[in-house]
Amino acid sequence: MPRYRLDVEYDGGPYKGFQLQAAGTPSVQGALETAIAAFSGEAARVFVAGRTDTGVHATGQVTHVDLARDWPAQVVRDAMNAHLIAERVAVLEAVRVGDEFHARFSARGRRYLYRILDRRPQPTLERGRVWWVRGALDAEAMGAAAERLLGRHDFTTFRDVHCQANSPLRTLDEAMVVRVGAEVQVHFAARSFLHKQVRSMVGTLAEVGAGRWTAADVADALAARDRAACGPVAPPEGLCLTGVVYDEP
Amino acid sequence: MPRYRLDVEYDGGPYKGFQLQAAGTPSVQGALETAIAAFSGEAARVFVAGRTDTGVHATGQVTHVDLARDWPAQVVRDAMNAHLIAERVAVLEAVRVGDEFHARFSARGRRYLYRILDRRPQPTLERGRVWWVRGALDAEAMGAAAERLLGRHDFTTFRDVHCQANSPLRTLDEAMVVRVGAEVQVHFAARSFLHKQVRSMVGTLAEVGAGRWTAADVADALAARDRAACGPVAPPEGLCLTGVVYDEP
Repeated sequence: MPRYRLDVEYDGGPYKGFQLQAAGTPSVQGALETAIAAFSGEAARVFVAGRTDTGVHATGQVTHVDLARDWPAQVVRDAMNAHLIAERVAVLEAVRVGDEFHARFSARGRRYLYRILDRRPQPTLERGRVWWVRGALDAEAMGAAAERLLGRHDFTTFRDVHCQANSPLRTLDEAMVVRVGAEVQVHFAARSFLHKQVRSMVGTLAEVGAGRWTAADVADALAARDRAACGPVAPPEGLCLTGVVYDEP
Repeated sequence: MPRYRLDVEYDGGPYKGFQLQAAGTPSVQGALETAIAAFSGEAARVFVAGRTDTGVHATGQVTHVDLARDWPAQVVRDAMNAHLIAERVAVLEAVRVGDEFHARFSARGRRYLYRILDRRPQPTLERGRVWWVRGALDAEAMGAAAERLLGRHDFTTFRDVHCQANSPLRTLDEAMVVRVGAEVQVHFAARSFLHKQVRSMVGTLAEVGAGRWTAADVADALAARDRAACGPVAPPEGLCLTGVVYDEP
């Protein structure tokens, strides 16, 4: 069967996460599979690089799907988008790929962006897209603390108790904090992340930004390998999956 | 009476423009005046630098209001924002100013940003914030055409037929087109603009970007001083008032 890589963008706000839910509960996977069925008549299953939680956004999500008929890739993209017009999901790119490509298992890296609006007035235009923190954050202090998380570690502290990964070991390749106007933006890159790892790290780094934690406290929390040592978990609306990296074919 | 300058941000989507409407029709002015009444008990009138149309956004709108009681400016801001929490409007800054300050008549310049998403897939995260144009636009060609609009001209061609300004003469100080990723962003600055002038100019420049018009066609349209010579008017959702300039006090 012809396999298609589908690069996908979505506003996570209206969806109960990426993963398919019971009928009547909106999910990104459900929206994609419904669009495929609508144009092709096929009940195809969509595989995804990074299962995002409820309310989490994506500008660079990657999925793949096998279809029975050999449609031109542009037809798949345009036909799906036509059926997704009332959703908050779009297929940015569709490419015909070989059977060796798997959206999840072929992925060599994931990139996330977490946006924090740290000002006293509430967000208006960016509501649902940023975490609103009323007090000013020290982005430089957050950046220095973020560096303590770089490298290969047991990230049990920053892992949801329901995380189903076999190992808590992960290698964090990038953890960068930049001030962009009224926002603090935190960029992370790793081969893969544990469940709620980014939001757990961001919530903890925000404690540093607010002056309640030091960088050494973050290093201690990591070393504790204890979920109880984590700071508050940042909310989903600030999080966006911005890209997935694959080996060149 | 103490006068307050209020810098305001809003998502224009839910509002029938800035200007106060009949009861039951949401407007930004109505939201601000309701918030003032809620915290102060005063039926105060809000004056604005740039009356934006239905669906037009602002990150740098400026207003002023006179209150009977001499509230600390921060109290005005925070109390208004508390009452605006269910709206898509926020007061970014409140400052006590002298009676000589008038949001509209003291303004020496206005800045607008118009965002166009020129890609085949529909917008998701930026829906309602950008004008979606399915075909790729040539931003460089648009920039060259935009330069033909710079300076002092009779802008009758780019003025709504219902525009109430006494004169169609305006001086366009800046008209810059930049490609930012999948977006074309058009920046304009002038002392003041005619009604729908920005959207009329952007819609016309998009014709150049699509290859249907040349820069000379834009110059000819301007010289015609005839509303019928204007290209299609761009929709409101891509437009944002980003700043108002005043003389230093």
